[in-house]
Amino acid sequence: MATYKILLLPGDGIGPEVAREVSKVLAWFTRAGIAQFETETDLVGGAAIDAHGVPLSEAAMDRAKAADAVLFGAVGGPKWAGVPYAKRPEAGLLRLRKDLGLFANLRPAICYPALADASALKRELVEGLDIVIVRELTGGVYFGEPKEIVTLEDGQKRAVDTQVYTTGEIERIAAVAFDLARKRRNKVASAEKHNVMKTGVLWKEAVTRLHAEQYADVGLEHVLADNCAMQLVRNPKQYDVLVTDNLFGDILSDVAAMLTGSLGMLPSASLGAVENGTRRALYEPVHGSAPDIAGQNLANPIAMIGSLAMALRYSFGLIEAADQLESAITRTLASGTRTRDIAAPGTNAVGTAEMGDAIVREL
Amino acid sequence: MATYKILLLPGDGIGPEVAREVSKVLAWFTRAGIAQFETETDLVGGAAIDAHGVPLSEAAMDRAKAADAVLFGAVGGPKWAGVPYAKRPEAGLLRLRKDLGLFANLRPAICYPALADASALKRELVEGLDIVIVRELTGGVYFGEPKEIVTLEDGQKRAVDTQVYTTGEIERIAAVAFDLARKRRNKVASAEKHNVMKTGVLWKEAVTRLHAEQYADVGLEHVLADNCAMQLVRNPKQYDVLVTDNLFGDILSDVAAMLTGSLGMLPSASLGAVENGTRRALYEPVHGSAPDIAGQNLANPIAMIGSLAMALRYSFGLIEAADQLESAITRTLASGTRTRDIAAPGTNAVGTAEMGDAIVREL
Ligand SMILES: CC(C)[C@H](C(=O)O)[C@@H](O)C(=O)O
Ligand SMILES: CC(C)[C@H](C(=O)O)[C@@H](O)C(=O)O
Repeated sequence: MATYKILLLPGDGIGPEVAREVSKVLAWFTRAGIAQFETETDLVGGAAIDAHGVPLSEAAMDRAKAADAVLFGAVGGPKWAGVPYAKRPEAGLLRLRKDLGLFANLRPAICYPALADASALKRELVEGLDIVIVRELTGGVYFGEPKEIVTLEDGQKRAVDTQVYTTGEIERIAAVAFDLARKRRNKVASAEKHNVMKTGVLWKEAVTRLHAEQYADVGLEHVLADNCAMQLVRNPKQYDVLVTDNLFGDILSDVAAMLTGSLGMLPSASLGAVENGTRRALYEPVHGSAPDIAGQNLANPIAMIGSLAMALRYSFGLIEAADQLESAITRTLASGTRTRDIAAPGTNAVGTAEMGDAIVREL
Repeated sequence: MATYKILLLPGDGIGPEVAREVSKVLAWFTRAGIAQFETETDLVGGAAIDAHGVPLSEAAMDRAKAADAVLFGAVGGPKWAGVPYAKRPEAGLLRLRKDLGLFANLRPAICYPALADASALKRELVEGLDIVIVRELTGGVYFGEPKEIVTLEDGQKRAVDTQVYTTGEIERIAAVAFDLARKRRNKVASAEKHNVMKTGVLWKEAVTRLHAEQYADVGLEHVLADNCAMQLVRNPKQYDVLVTDNLFGDILSDVAAMLTGSLGMLPSASLGAVENGTRRALYEPVHGSAPDIAGQNLANPIAMIGSLAMALRYSFGLIEAADQLESAITRTLASGTRTRDIAAPGTNAVGTAEMGDAIVREL
């Protein structure tokens, strides 16, 4: 039985609760003799600030580097609103992304049939929706320098952020999108603001050239990011794979996730480059730390459990186990078991722990 | 009878068609003895590139400076996709905004009752929606330097955009939002990414201080821009006035506009600072140049005519005339007259020109 090293970083808010349900699922797979998991748990975000004064300790960073996959919960909350910028909870997540080289963030937006009515959009616009946002995750305005606030002579302050992209950074994320599209409906939309931003000009140019040289069989459309946000609301099903930069990806993927009515259900994968047949990877739910409902057994653990399914598939090559877990989730939903966020008349409302138990039962 | 100087810049695509309908309305106001308009017309965007090789001639810029208000149609289209960055159609619009000092972009997102079913969102989420996005328009990543593409030694290119904000720039746009909220439902939401961007940190700090010092009576909420995009889809009616930076404003206002189902109906105002009792101003529809339907008498001229109503109100102080024009639009819609974009079973489908005529008739 193969052994995989997992680092579990539950983080803040509802993170620990949903991470607990993942541990149940891991235990089941071990009991079933499918694989062995060496799971370590560490702190990140506000929890790490409280314990170590930094949002990610060096020891945790080392463990992340040594792991086959990192499972991440969520970070942040009002408790740490006053923490200095460099040590804020989010800095822990950003450091993991950057130092593990996780440049490719895959965010599926799937509308589960059972939940189509939970969407703010009309049912016919979202029913059957299945798109993936491929977001560049280690470049752009998130990491560009200078990034600073300076005080001017007249006492005013001046803040600067810098968005930087190189041809190579754009090509490698576009290649991920094109490869993924080939396994799906073979269509890529690339979103930028080339009418205002030089990074948008280079983005469009690099994507166009890579497409012509290596992916001419894949459909490609360029769309302005503002128009793309509109189109996601107007008719999201027009898209298959949507590739975009770090900041636009942050916003567009949140819009796409919200459309599905399944925010508490959506997993994501952040992948590094393939080196010697393996790649670094971090898996996390699309939702945040939801401090308002933390600790009340109200959170939906499906996004987190679905993130484990993505890890089984992409990091461990346990395709059957991934399928098995995903269909256990689908059956659990079909049986009417629902956490509060996806409850509907006639369904059976349960808490976080009960949802995890129900999924393990279906396994 | 007072005389007002208007510069009409129809631009590209459907711009000229919808601008023509505005001229009909202006002619009616003059005939009715309400005011005299000295209207000059000039080229902008692709049309100006074709005629002068630049997206805005110096002569047109001078006319814009001399006018009491600029009425702008739309710019851009596939025809000018190959034009060098500095001379692209959009540069004409950006120069007008910058050189006229139009830092405050007011974008109402109103769901007209007659059109609630045209929204992608469920009726109950958008019915009665009435929010205003106050977008900073002369700063941020649109104008910050460096903004360039350089070729590196290894042949790769590196593109840079710079987002810059000073305390003063943030305070003056926040003041516009707070003042506006006082005349409405007294609530401001301020959107940024202070968890990732230094400009977001300064933004939040400056808005918080201005609020405490001068607008403590107004409700204030800070929201992360990605979450804001989600909330606009989930429950847009939670907002009243939403203030944000140039780039987030570009995207969030497009999402908000699309929610209303009335994209072809939404006007906007871009205002400068008040100096000697007057302020520079440009009014334009929220929609773009829609090259796919240009020249076919299909475009909805209401956003453009509504932009004139905003000019009557904000630039000329002709409040009654503005009310009169807006209620003529409402009556025309109520009578079932509809362009294709807002057509519905049982309504009377008309073209651009007929819609303009119908509104003039209602006047
Ligand atoms: C928590 C925050 C830093 C992060 C981001 O902006 O990338 C989050 O919004 C996300 O989308 O993963
Ligand atoms: C045409 C373009 C430059 C412009 C912008 O990005 O500001 C447009 O999208 C807008 O919102 O007015």
